[in-house]
Amino acid sequence: MSSIPVQIPAYIDANAKAFVDRLARAVAIPSISGDVNNRKDVFAMADFLEGELVKLGVSVKRAKLGKQVLDGVELELPDAILGTLGSDKAKKTILLYGHFDVQPALKSDGWDTEPFVLTEDPATGRLIGRGSSDDKGPVLGWLNAIEAYQKSNVEIPVNIKFCFEGMEESGSEGLDELIEAEAKAGGYFHGVDAVCISDNYWLNTRTPALTYGLRGISYYKITIAGPARDLHSGVFGRTVHEPMTDLITLMSKLVTPSGDILVPGVEDLVAPLTEQEKARYVSLDYSVSDVEHSAGAKVALSDDKATVLMGRMRYPSLSLHGIEGAFSAPGAKTVIPAKVSGKFSIRLVPDQTPALVDPLVIAYLKSEFAKLNTKNTLSIENLHGGKPWVADPDHWNYEAAKRATKAVYGRAPDLTREGGSIPVTLTFAESLGVNVLLLPMGRGDDGAHSTNEKLDKSNFLQGSKLLGTYLWEVAKS
Amino acid sequence: MSSIPVQIPAYIDANAKAFVDRLARAVAIPSISGDVNNRKDVFAMADFLEGELVKLGVSVKRAKLGKQVLDGVELELPDAILGTLGSDKAKKTILLYGHFDVQPALKSDGWDTEPFVLTEDPATGRLIGRGSSDDKGPVLGWLNAIEAYQKSNVEIPVNIKFCFEGMEESGSEGLDELIEAEAKAGGYFHGVDAVCISDNYWLNTRTPALTYGLRGISYYKITIAGPARDLHSGVFGRTVHEPMTDLITLMSKLVTPSGDILVPGVEDLVAPLTEQEKARYVSLDYSVSDVEHSAGAKVALSDDKATVLMGRMRYPSLSLHGIEGAFSAPGAKTVIPAKVSGKFSIRLVPDQTPALVDPLVIAYLKSEFAKLNTKNTLSIENLHGGKPWVADPDHWNYEAAKRATKAVYGRAPDLTREGGSIPVTLTFAESLGVNVLLLPMGRGDDGAHSTNEKLDKSNFLQGSKLLGTYLWEVAKS
Repeated sequence: MSSIPVQIPAYIDANAKAFVDRLARAVAIPSISGDVNNRKDVFAMADFLEGELVKLGVSVKRAKLGKQVLDGVELELPDAILGTLGSDKAKKTILLYGHFDVQPALKSDGWDTEPFVLTEDPATGRLIGRGSSDDKGPVLGWLNAIEAYQKSNVEIPVNIKFCFEGMEESGSEGLDELIEAEAKAGGYFHGVDAVCISDNYWLNTRTPALTYGLRGISYYKITIAGPARDLHSGVFGRTVHEPMTDLITLMSKLVTPSGDILVPGVEDLVAPLTEQEKARYVSLDYSVSDVEHSAGAKVALSDDKATVLMGRMRYPSLSLHGIEGAFSAPGAKTVIPAKVSGKFSIRLVPDQTPALVDPLVIAYLKSEFAKLNTKNTLSIENLHGGKPWVADPDHWNYEAAKRATKAVYGRAPDLTREGGSIPVTLTFAESLGVNVLLLPMGRGDDGAHSTNEKLDKSNFLQGSKLLGTYLWEVAKS
Repeated sequence: MSSIPVQIPAYIDANAKAFVDRLARAVAIPSISGDVNNRKDVFAMADFLEGELVKLGVSVKRAKLGKQVLDGVELELPDAILGTLGSDKAKKTILLYGHFDVQPALKSDGWDTEPFVLTEDPATGRLIGRGSSDDKGPVLGWLNAIEAYQKSNVEIPVNIKFCFEGMEESGSEGLDELIEAEAKAGGYFHGVDAVCISDNYWLNTRTPALTYGLRGISYYKITIAGPARDLHSGVFGRTVHEPMTDLITLMSKLVTPSGDILVPGVEDLVAPLTEQEKARYVSLDYSVSDVEHSAGAKVALSDDKATVLMGRMRYPSLSLHGIEGAFSAPGAKTVIPAKVSGKFSIRLVPDQTPALVDPLVIAYLKSEFAKLNTKNTLSIENLHGGKPWVADPDHWNYEAAKRATKAVYGRAPDLTREGGSIPVTLTFAESLGVNVLLLPMGRGDDGAHSTNEKLDKSNFLQGSKLLGTYLWEVAKS
């Protein structure tokens, strides 16, 4: 079969400056979805994106998502931008998802440059600015690719549906309901053949990646209460059951310092490891020292690369996040806190789900608490949960992305799973019943939610070619 | 031997209004030693007190204590007010200690009345205001008693030395050095025969008490550090050694939910319980339900009164206060904290001292930490420490106070030990080598550091008689 016509990647190289300028215009709009004062900017960013899509001939539909209350203020949720380009029944239809809102950023947080001024570092080729990599770069990457097809007079070989949202950094409020409604017969997304999301990162700074799995999560808050008010340890020490002693004892029963989860049955739910899957981790372009470089210290749980990578990608983890209600300030306070809440979460992998894991956790906590023989009380809350997601990495959607990666980067991509969650992935997979591909543009060191977020210019341009080539290859599948 | 002349207590009853008015004038001066903005008020309170002492013929010496830095501001420490009344070599010399500074208080903290306006509740007879009970009431109680002697034309049967400080609520800065210096030959306090401190509380609301013991303390901060920065649990969960897991495991090895200290050797240092001492706890006017009433819930460690009281008074306790550096806010944050510090303290009793206990704690923590097999690091700090103090409750100083209590209240006092610390007690005992008596004026529910601090009017008046009668009785010993 034919390769993508060379004029398409050539157009992207030739128009690099215009594309970077457009990214700079997008970054200049501080579309922070989590800040009441920036809600107008999220709407402005939706307008900007709609305008760019319309220029490309995309038929745009703005979807209202209702209202929310943020910091005590009732706000209109940002519209989702839906779009259609092409409706040829002979072609596949691919749904592209991205988001146009960003995390907060202030120069005073520690940025070296103004966060909402896209700044190119000539020494490194980095395009530095809030949203450059997460996710305005990838969203505009799709537009770059489509423009390259059109200006090169090459017919786009697939129909495209767009779903761009403005609330991803604030829990994607309202989006699940929209996707589920539009996935039904007669809905906007009904009949799509596959989904592609460009909103994550390479494993490292060297090797392109396709991502086929995400861990789920179950987040718990366990509260132990007793005295009616905080007590003085001089007066009450060794006269009453202290909630902190009970809580620390209980939390110590959850996970070992080497990471093993002690809640009976939880590890048993993990799908067995096959030789074929194990081989994928062994082959990834990653090392234990990469992990330790990211963490900033030599604290990896193992010296074996596959073990460390599987700990992140295919095994569950239990992390103790902290305690609410205890003394947490600097200094020395002799308080017996009256009511303390421990926070911990379990990252879930197939075949674990919150529905299967939660009862095991609750039963175990109750049983261990009973052993304490305390007069204090225990309550357990589940603060949020989400199922893990794994796709078939040999599906034609992935095979197309592998060929596209090979064509643009001259090498096979790493096939990765991520330890975190992108909940919309699961919503697309379950609502539409089709394969979902995560096709990242940026590198592992982009610092998506940190200071000095960046997208390497080469990733922006090669990534735009990658997205365009993926559209070419997926049509051939 | 003769009893105190009846005109002395009669004078106190007859002048109740004037004494309450004087207390109101003292309370009106917001002498908060911990607030930079109130330092001038602490000095104003020193002036007020000096003026009242001079009216009684006391020879006053103001002792400069140097400077401190508070909230970044260099401040003059409040002068200590030293005083002498009488120098008859045929009489005993008693040193009286009190303090004229107070804890902070704002009406918005939850006070029902203005905290610096002494307000008498006619229904209960409570005198409500900051410092009413801690410690302006008792300090003025001494002045009331002396005035009663003088206006009744009765010679005070002892020489008196005064030591009133203005930094007690802020660590008594500078005072230890002053006491140690003035205790030496030729010093202001040299040659005193006994000390009496009125700055604590009855065990309950019914029975007067003498206090002959205080627990010491050793306060620890244990820090576990690993990653260079906080990590995301999705990305790093089960790839690195998590400091919180190590810390919670370590903290769980310190104390059981029933209060037993697990650090080997620490409990072994406790002086054996004699039958005679046990009998004192059994006889105290206190019940398990009193403890549970104070704590606001049925959470006592035992149903046996003596066990609960001994837990507070004569056994050590280990309390886990909290964790610095972990997630302590409301909500659900999926952080792996990079560096976390656990805070805990041990209340010490004879024959424990920080010097004996600290090495046991440090060795145990290091040994338990080694068992974790973690790549994170442990550091241990001792934030502060103080020895326990116990006096002989059958000493003539105590016998005098017992007779005085019987004379004023018609009953024997509870002989108590307290679970907290009043460090100056130990300084007096060790520097002067004499018996120290704690002779409380207020009740167990006065709420010294809380909102709505109060002193019952009857405790103020009967307490003034008690202090006067103590001076009478101690002369006879």
